Amino acid sequence: MRVEIISIGDEILIGQIVNTNAAWMSQKLNIAGFEVVRISTVSDKKDDIILSINDAVKRVDVILLTGGLGPTKDDITKEALCEYFNTELIFNENAFQQVKTLFSVRGFEVTEINRKQAELPKSCTPIANHNGTAAGMWFNENGKIIVSMPGVPFEMKPMMTDSVIPELKKHFKTPVILHKTILTQCKGESFLAEIINDWENELPKNIKLAYLPQPGIVRLRLSAKGENAEILNKQVEAEVEKLKKIIPKYIFGYDDDKLEQIIGELLKEKKKTLSTAESCTGGYISHLITSVSGSSEYYLGSIISYSNEIKEYLLGVTKQSMIDYGVVSEQVITQMAKGVKEKLNTDYSIAVSGIAGPSGGSVEKPVGTMWIAIATPEKVIARKFLFGEHRERNIRKTALMALDMLRKEILTAKG
Amino acid sequence: MRVEIISIGDEILIGQIVNTNAAWMSQKLNIAGFEVVRISTVSDKKDDIILSINDAVKRVDVILLTGGLGPTKDDITKEALCEYFNTELIFNENAFQQVKTLFSVRGFEVTEINRKQAELPKSCTPIANHNGTAAGMWFNENGKIIVSMPGVPFEMKPMMTDSVIPELKKHFKTPVILHKTILTQCKGESFLAEIINDWENELPKNIKLAYLPQPGIVRLRLSAKGENAEILNKQVEAEVEKLKKIIPKYIFGYDDDKLEQIIGELLKEKKKTLSTAESCTGGYISHLITSVSGSSEYYLGSIISYSNEIKEYLLGVTKQSMIDYGVVSEQVITQMAKGVKEKLNTDYSIAVSGIAGPSGGSVEKPVGTMWIAIATPEKVIARKFLFGEHRERNIRKTALMALDMLRKEILTAKG
Repeated sequence: MRVEIISIGDEILIGQIVNTNAAWMSQKLNIAGFEVVRISTVSDKKDDIILSINDAVKRVDVILLTGGLGPTKDDITKEALCEYFNTELIFNENAFQQVKTLFSVRGFEVTEINRKQAELPKSCTPIANHNGTAAGMWFNENGKIIVSMPGVPFEMKPMMTDSVIPELKKHFKTPVILHKTILTQCKGESFLAEIINDWENELPKNIKLAYLPQPGIVRLRLSAKGENAEILNKQVEAEVEKLKKIIPKYIFGYDDDKLEQIIGELLKEKKKTLSTAESCTGGYISHLITSVSGSSEYYLGSIISYSNEIKEYLLGVTKQSMIDYGVVSEQVITQMAKGVKEKLNTDYSIAVSGIAGPSGGSVEKPVGTMWIAIATPEKVIARKFLFGEHRERNIRKTALMALDMLRKEILTAKG
Repeated sequence: MRVEIISIGDEILIGQIVNTNAAWMSQKLNIAGFEVVRISTVSDKKDDIILSINDAVKRVDVILLTGGLGPTKDDITKEALCEYFNTELIFNENAFQQVKTLFSVRGFEVTEINRKQAELPKSCTPIANHNGTAAGMWFNENGKIIVSMPGVPFEMKPMMTDSVIPELKKHFKTPVILHKTILTQCKGESFLAEIINDWENELPKNIKLAYLPQPGIVRLRLSAKGENAEILNKQVEAEVEKLKKIIPKYIFGYDDDKLEQIIGELLKEKKKTLSTAESCTGGYISHLITSVSGSSEYYLGSIISYSNEIKEYLLGVTKQSMIDYGVVSEQVITQMAKGVKEKLNTDYSIAVSGIAGPSGGSVEKPVGTMWIAIATPEKVIARKFLFGEHRERNIRKTALMALDMLRKEILTAKG
């Protein structure tokens, strides 16, 4: 069933707020088997709203509007709906009682403005709003359903999940849609596309693949459509299994997994601890690790050695090796990883050193050169990378690569 | 001049990503004097893309498309544009050279897929992409301008600011719009609104005020509209001067200023050095400081003491004070600030310790309790805060508050 979301509000069009409502609604509709074919954002002008509904009814079966239901002058969605449906506002006792109840709970007095909010278009079925003063409105005309909801997320969301989606499911038979996202880390989108080209070409017709790149990560999303959830699930899992055989090294997780969470789970499971020594990433790896609630169970801390003195003094890197090989070198990164592991007395450690840019590069070691080392209970491994010129991206890519290297080491460890 | 943004991508319609591109573009266009009248999001289907362009040309003068320019099969914006403009793809040598240069810098090989990305519609003027392999495309037909850009924010943003907006300004006469954003740090939006209420009511009619709250920061944006940039500038500056007298303590910067940059400038100017000792923020303060290019001039490093042993062993916090007062206490935070300042031999230091949540709180010290200390060449100051229940926001608020406390200390220092 085809749906269009129309978000109403000048604050979105001038970029003052990001339209997170539409993203949330799309997600919920998609899971419920509805296909969102378009999201439109229009201004708080009556003509624009009417025009957007006129356009949408030609394309879709269901139109969901949000916004413009507040008590102030700039909110004119109800007027626009009255004009579109050629109807008028009438006072709705039920809607008014709801506002009164809500206000008495909060100890507020009902004002004349709130009374006006209980005036609704004659031809609509009101939808209760348990979290605010603006009722939702459900219109059913010529087989098309048009629903108007408040734009305040806190009011719209329960209205969607408790009333609108269940009601829509009564009206339409919906197909089963199943999404599975495979998280990979590799050289990039085009590199991956070449390797998995044959697999992609042989995907069943009801399964679509999308590449969703982010700095340091490429997400592969499989979307399957069918009648039966169980069959679809088996179909998708079979394709994932095939893919795992083609790129076993690049897959690190699925759906909403995050590397720092996966590592946390692994360390907790194996009862191991972790420390980090960061130079060019300046604390970003530590920040990612500690963004996971409960990370204090396995993460002990970090030494951020931005200066060479600290590398020497706190991490035990020898002055001579910094002179002989440079700070960004296999010798120094290995000593950093060993040093922090010993100093903080952990089972594993991560160390990074490199040239994040934009300055500090040389012909021999250009901006984007990174050394990453992982110390395990048995050994230290070190790898060199060459990323790009952009400081922020270099920091992010290095952090993700370091976490992925650690993940692989923990997985292949004996202990 | 009326603009429509068309965002192309199934990932937006299924709610997998939030359309932050459109919000960013709207903001930049608005500042440049263009009016965004609609934002549409459509799927990666050729017909949907063509239909949306057909609709938009009836409404607006400029259409900006993003997305669907990747090298993989699911990206079909170029095909759609060829069909819409009744033209064909031809190989563009310049675009190809750009990809080659980009890849040689990164040490990657150019693949057949990348070569295909240099095929562009015959009737377009290519727009250079300095950050990726997909060129932008500029079409000019019957007085309407249609521009297609990549959807990757990191590629789209420089293309907008460096090429598209300057080029649009050449084509259209736009009113002079002047924005000035005042960055403040205080108890929050409604707190600030009460204090500056009179000033706000007396603003000239051509100047509008918007409150743009972010975790830990409230930005106040003044938008002035007129004919003459010089007059507008004087008008806005006069209002800013009035505001500075009302809230001198809360203003820390303007426009795109960042606290970490302001602190960097101050430290460089005064030739002073900085270190940090972080517990609950887990490296986030260090990450902010080192996100500034050139920060190695004044920032020496950090000790991230997630465990109590490290607080004792590396920062010199006494076991007894952790037992007597708890880890989140004035006594411990003061020792942490002193400890890291001495150990890393810096002029200033920041130390933070608190309960980021969601777990770990108690009746006496609930989630959101934070102690921040700043050590200066002369003294140590410590302050307690009570933020909210949300881990990510608590980390961010604490970091910004700590940086602002440091800023004030450096500013009032004698040296």
